[in-house]
Amino acid sequence: MGSFRGHALPGTFFILMGLWWCSKSILKYICKKQKRSCYLSSKALFQRAEIWEGIIIISMALTGMAGEQFISGGPYLNLYKEGQWNQLLGWHHTTMYFFFGLLGVANILCFTTSSFPVSLTKLMLSNALFVESFIFFNHTHGREMLDIFVHQLLVFVTLLSGVVAFMEFLTKSNVLLELLRASLILLQGSWLWQIGFVLYPPNGSPAWDQTDHGNKMFLTICFCWHYASSYVIIGANYAFINWLVKSRLRRLCPSEVGLLKNAEKEQESEEEV
Amino acid sequence: MGSFRGHALPGTFFILMGLWWCSKSILKYICKKQKRSCYLSSKALFQRAEIWEGIIIISMALTGMAGEQFISGGPYLNLYKEGQWNQLLGWHHTTMYFFFGLLGVANILCFTTSSFPVSLTKLMLSNALFVESFIFFNHTHGREMLDIFVHQLLVFVTLLSGVVAFMEFLTKSNVLLELLRASLILLQGSWLWQIGFVLYPPNGSPAWDQTDHGNKMFLTICFCWHYASSYVIIGANYAFINWLVKSRLRRLCPSEVGLLKNAEKEQESEEEV
Amino acid sequence: MGSFRGHALPGTFFILMGLWWCSKSILKYICKKQKRSCYLSSKALFQRAEIWEGIIIISMALTGMAGEQFISGGPYLNLYKEGQWNQLLGWHHTTMYFFFGLLGVANILCFTTSSFPVSLTKLMLSNALFVESFIFFNHTHGREMLDIFVHQLLVFVTLLSGVVAFMEFLTKSNVLLELLRASLILLQGSWLWQIGFVLYPPNGSPAWDQTDHGNKMFLTICFCWHYASSYVIIGANYAFINWLVKSRLRRLCPSEVGLLKNAEKEQESEEEV
Amino acid sequence: MGSFRGHALPGTFFILMGLWWCSKSILKYICKKQKRSCYLSSKALFQRAEIWEGIIIISMALTGMAGEQFISGGPYLNLYKEGQWNQLLGWHHTTMYFFFGLLGVANILCFTTSSFPVSLTKLMLSNALFVESFIFFNHTHGREMLDIFVHQLLVFVTLLSGVVAFMEFLTKSNVLLELLRASLILLQGSWLWQIGFVLYPPNGSPAWDQTDHGNKMFLTICFCWHYASSYVIIGANYAFINWLVKSRLRRLCPSEVGLLKNAEKEQESEEEV
Repeated sequence: MGSFRGHALPGTFFILMGLWWCSKSILKYICKKQKRSCYLSSKALFQRAEIWEGIIIISMALTGMAGEQFISGGPYLNLYKEGQWNQLLGWHHTTMYFFFGLLGVANILCFTTSSFPVSLTKLMLSNALFVESFIFFNHTHGREMLDIFVHQLLVFVTLLSGVVAFMEFLTKSNVLLELLRASLILLQGSWLWQIGFVLYPPNGSPAWDQTDHGNKMFLTICFCWHYASSYVIIGANYAFINWLVKSRLRRLCPSEVGLLKNAEKEQESEEEV
Repeated sequence: MGSFRGHALPGTFFILMGLWWCSKSILKYICKKQKRSCYLSSKALFQRAEIWEGIIIISMALTGMAGEQFISGGPYLNLYKEGQWNQLLGWHHTTMYFFFGLLGVANILCFTTSSFPVSLTKLMLSNALFVESFIFFNHTHGREMLDIFVHQLLVFVTLLSGVVAFMEFLTKSNVLLELLRASLILLQGSWLWQIGFVLYPPNGSPAWDQTDHGNKMFLTICFCWHYASSYVIIGANYAFINWLVKSRLRRLCPSEVGLLKNAEKEQESEEEV
Repeated sequence: MGSFRGHALPGTFFILMGLWWCSKSILKYICKKQKRSCYLSSKALFQRAEIWEGIIIISMALTGMAGEQFISGGPYLNLYKEGQWNQLLGWHHTTMYFFFGLLGVANILCFTTSSFPVSLTKLMLSNALFVESFIFFNHTHGREMLDIFVHQLLVFVTLLSGVVAFMEFLTKSNVLLELLRASLILLQGSWLWQIGFVLYPPNGSPAWDQTDHGNKMFLTICFCWHYASSYVIIGANYAFINWLVKSRLRRLCPSEVGLLKNAEKEQESEEEV
Repeated sequence: MGSFRGHALPGTFFILMGLWWCSKSILKYICKKQKRSCYLSSKALFQRAEIWEGIIIISMALTGMAGEQFISGGPYLNLYKEGQWNQLLGWHHTTMYFFFGLLGVANILCFTTSSFPVSLTKLMLSNALFVESFIFFNHTHGREMLDIFVHQLLVFVTLLSGVVAFMEFLTKSNVLLELLRASLILLQGSWLWQIGFVLYPPNGSPAWDQTDHGNKMFLTICFCWHYASSYVIIGANYAFINWLVKSRLRRLCPSEVGLLKNAEKEQESEEEV
């Protein structure tokens, strides 16, 4: 993983999953708010989507594990070679991907067989995130200050998203909690890209000075800006899906939209006080 | 922000918001307890107040950002100048104000359109506070002991108020939790004034000895006294609003007050055991 | 407070309050379980007890503050003398007692007037404990290892009991949570006695070696034994009160006790699965 | 305990209890899901199992305490000998076992008498785990890096399982939370075996190099693999018990199984959205 691509690949995975999870949560929330048998809210469709989600997560995890093990210079599944541990950093990443693979397996099992509680997926997600943050916490021995700092921030965001996923597991479905988790996953993905740019600049430019405190202070606010942009992305996504669902509803059943608006207003005024 | 005014300005903002939030919570609680259609509890009024709150928060955030960027010696929107980062501390504060601006935007969106859940404002508030504590945590590299200590206490109170705001987001409305949050916001505001007095004494007196442990130990209890005084302020506010509402009710409908008292007593005796 | 008596006095206060709180919780639980209008469960009696509790807490806090300020060598209310801070450790303890005084005031206000929610007392208790742990955390600059360690354990138990009190504030009444808090308060009281014996041996014996790691390791398990003994005290208290209430009930209304037992068994078997 | 057997014995205890707890939770969950008066779900049977659980935990704790005190080189109940503390590490372990003994006592009391709330066992379990993590946290003064690291991981997993047990105490019964706790107990048990192999290799091979960072990085992922295998064990256990209960039901009442499946599907589709 000690390369730009080794950070960009998982970063892309997390960004894709974050986008998908926020879209799914928003869609469910809007469909639920309308309490109608529109074709979008059909349970079968969501169930099939969950199974596909599981398959995609597993294939992502397998891609990552294969990349860590077999790309040039990887450990090629040898853990112990010539009297010492072989490429432990690569094994760290493999282990991390493996737990995300378990999440995919749980996703498929929960939505194909009927004997598992559905919140198992939330638990496995928080587990995968906790394991990831545990591994990265013990990952940066003997490196430079800036390298340690960007990985600490990664541990921080991973831990936070694990905590939020665990809260989702404990509480009933809460759309804002789901969006918060999606925003943290997006932040993690874009931060992995940022780490790639900081430690392994792709276009041949020199690496950042790893001992300069100015760089550290800049990355502190850069991290906040990534977070702000993940909020903007989710907000735009919300507006788009809201518009899409309403425009389709209007085309299909124009008379119902008026009723809908009244219902929403009443509901809101109840929550308000 | 490296000046007395740079600490007094956000301190004043926080004190004003703390006072407004505690007044709002108390007013809602007392109106709710009476379960009457008195004009104060009209939903439209509260809704308009929330929108004004959002506008005021945004204007405060814009004032703060403009002050950080354009007052003499500020970065004037240049992030990178002459081969090095330009005025990163100012950019830190700008970022902090920006997230409070997002809170104002969320406030306006939640109470003008009907498609957002109302608890979004609580989530954005806790986010803004968490971001603030994250930024101040990475803010004090290479400073003196006392400077670091007063900023650590600021991080501490910011983190606590973020946690309380997040609890409000998760639980149903609880007046004491809201007042607790307001008291922590008040504490944060008055502590910013205290930091200004400690690090940049306004009337030309010499700055405090930054390496004296006696000063550190005094500031520990000084922090507690600030907290105690925020309790006293909230208590006085409660007594005043309680008196105001009851005296107005008595003038309007004297016969109902007697019934009210009985209802209250019954309710209390139920909660008690 | 730098004396044996300065630790024994608050230790005694905490032990007395712990015993009272655990007795009150047990009594309420047993009376509630029987759902009868026995004279013990009369609300008026419990309400009067709460008011007396408030008065006793205030008088304890005033005693502690007076002791810290006016006993020989205290600061005599002078905060700043001869160009430096005067007796800040004494002021630390005074501040700590003051917040417990606020708890007493809240107790009286909640149970005499009808305009405060009853859970305010829980919030003020957790506040007083958090402030105490905050003050002791910043209390031990420049001392010996063992002195710091015993105060760290004090901070630890204070923080835990504050967290438990805050949980009580958030959740509905739960007898085990109340007993847990009482056990932590008892532990705090007996640990204050232990600190007195370690740092200021009363009968003229030499103080413990403050740099010996053996002492530190012994105090680690000694702390656990204090905790185990607080459990034993609460268990004995439970058995005693249970026996007392049942024997009195049997004397008053022998036929009802049989019905009672059946009701209990049914309730238990419901909870069990 | 400074030997291979001293780590393998408690490790075996924890693995056995983890297996038993996960089996019990799964069995209860499957029986509850079927809402039938099958003989397995009979309350009397579960109650008797709880009492036996208490007896076994007490005998395990007594075995552990006796082993720590009386095996060659133990303290033989002498706390203070020849002017200094005697074998404090052994006393640490004895204290730890004692709190697990308290858990066994609570188990028996809760299910034989009717005057205790059943969630007391959960509270005592979390207490025992918190005390264990507290003791191990203060246990490794002056040791080598690797020794400290493996004990830190032990403290970490103990603390986590204590937190999960406390969550179980606070919330209603949640099968996934119970399985999570069981998986952490299994992890603790297998990690104690791992510590034995690392620090006291049983078959005469040389101990691991305690200052090599490669070993530390390997043990980081080894810890994750232990955790993954505890998941696999619980999954296999779930599949086995599920198959067992269903095959027995099919043999007893084949017509009911069809109805059952429909009921499950409906329930699932309700939870899903």
